[in-house]
Amino acid sequence: MSLSIIFIGSGNVATHLAQALHGAGNRIAQVYSRTLKNAKALADKFSAAYTDNIGEIDRTADLYLFSVKDDVLPDIVVQMPRTSGVWVHTAGSVPMDVFAPRGRNYGVLYPLQTFSKERSINFSEIPVCVEGNDSETEKFLRTVASGISGNVNVLPSEKRKYLHLGAVFACNFTNHLYALAAEIVENQQIPFDMLKPLIAETAAKVMEISPQAAQTGPAVRFDETVMRKHTELIGNEKTKNIYSVLSESIYRTAKKMQ
Amino acid sequence: MSLSIIFIGSGNVATHLAQALHGAGNRIAQVYSRTLKNAKALADKFSAAYTDNIGEIDRTADLYLFSVKDDVLPDIVVQMPRTSGVWVHTAGSVPMDVFAPRGRNYGVLYPLQTFSKERSINFSEIPVCVEGNDSETEKFLRTVASGISGNVNVLPSEKRKYLHLGAVFACNFTNHLYALAAEIVENQQIPFDMLKPLIAETAAKVMEISPQAAQTGPAVRFDETVMRKHTELIGNEKTKNIYSVLSESIYRTAKKMQ
Repeated sequence: MSLSIIFIGSGNVATHLAQALHGAGNRIAQVYSRTLKNAKALADKFSAAYTDNIGEIDRTADLYLFSVKDDVLPDIVVQMPRTSGVWVHTAGSVPMDVFAPRGRNYGVLYPLQTFSKERSINFSEIPVCVEGNDSETEKFLRTVASGISGNVNVLPSEKRKYLHLGAVFACNFTNHLYALAAEIVENQQIPFDMLKPLIAETAAKVMEISPQAAQTGPAVRFDETVMRKHTELIGNEKTKNIYSVLSESIYRTAKKMQ
Repeated sequence: MSLSIIFIGSGNVATHLAQALHGAGNRIAQVYSRTLKNAKALADKFSAAYTDNIGEIDRTADLYLFSVKDDVLPDIVVQMPRTSGVWVHTAGSVPMDVFAPRGRNYGVLYPLQTFSKERSINFSEIPVCVEGNDSETEKFLRTVASGISGNVNVLPSEKRKYLHLGAVFACNFTNHLYALAAEIVENQQIPFDMLKPLIAETAAKVMEISPQAAQTGPAVRFDETVMRKHTELIGNEKTKNIYSVLSESIYRTAKKMQ
């Protein structure tokens, strides 16, 4: 199956998805962004057309991939011209029905990964969650997603939002803890590099053992001596509070498991 | 250099260190634990002697490795018989001077890693931090550590405690976020497996990019719509609070960087 695909949005998710879909033999036909320079930058990778005028979006593509900020999506949907083809968005927390006022065949194609400009991503193992407004659309999206990933899941909006919430904890919040750890050691002229083997092993461990079973550290045994010493070392009151609420939560979870 | 080594303590850290030191050509001579069964279990791996009586600890070893709970260590130190050899502990947050009342040559050998019974560890890349009460002891401990790791660092107690604090954020707290993420998705019958590629990539990313630069998600752009939706999905008030304090901290950090 070779599809003609139009991207509405040109950020990290759009860029990585466009590369994967192009690599799977589809044609990136056009890129829309409200910033023309951004539309051009992504379009040029695929010799695609580009525009910053929603009215100029081509109406004959097979798939319209909306990858814009959550807040902006409803506005863009109402401005869209009538088109053939399927409309999908890539957002974790936006219900499929954002398209209901205007779409005919629509759905969601949500790749569960953190995308940065600096890193290339192997899509084949990324879980891609799809949803369609009817069984034909769902089947179409399953096929599209299977072209880029071996890990395709049909997941309704009501479930997807919880998956996205879990991803915020497992990725965004986790990365912030790395940043707080970096701040703590770098303030002492200790390089962040020293923490890298620990970070790698902590992630590798939960590939095999459940995170509940993998928990170690002073909070799990509620070692008050260590915890008191630690909070005394933290200069920032907000970070001190993070230390406390996470330690309490670890201890509470460990007690529940006994 | 082949040393005769006695372990005081038989937990995860002791077990992994004993295996690494044995693998480097040293002799595990004896294991002490207040629980005889545990002492025997570790000792039997190396055909070593074992005891649950501190008075029976052999006095002629080259190295005494104390790997016990922080709170217990001072008590054990005062009960120790006079021995030849160097005394070291493996704790992140205990000053070297815990040995001062009794030790002659003493120090610290702190491997920065999370150890579990279920996983074997390749010591060669683990940062090992050493400290000695005089330059001869420090040199001895550098040599011992170099036998098991290519990443040996001399780090005083005053710095080591900050490294340990950083490790709590980068490992213990991070793992707990994995556990909260697992709880959130599993409550919706979504398998934790779906989050694993994201967890792996989040960790892999900071091997190359600083965690400050790698930050993504709704909090970094303070996307209040998504954040409000998310907090509404969280049933547990304590977890809701964790969501709020971490989101605020992410946003505050991002603003500081601008």
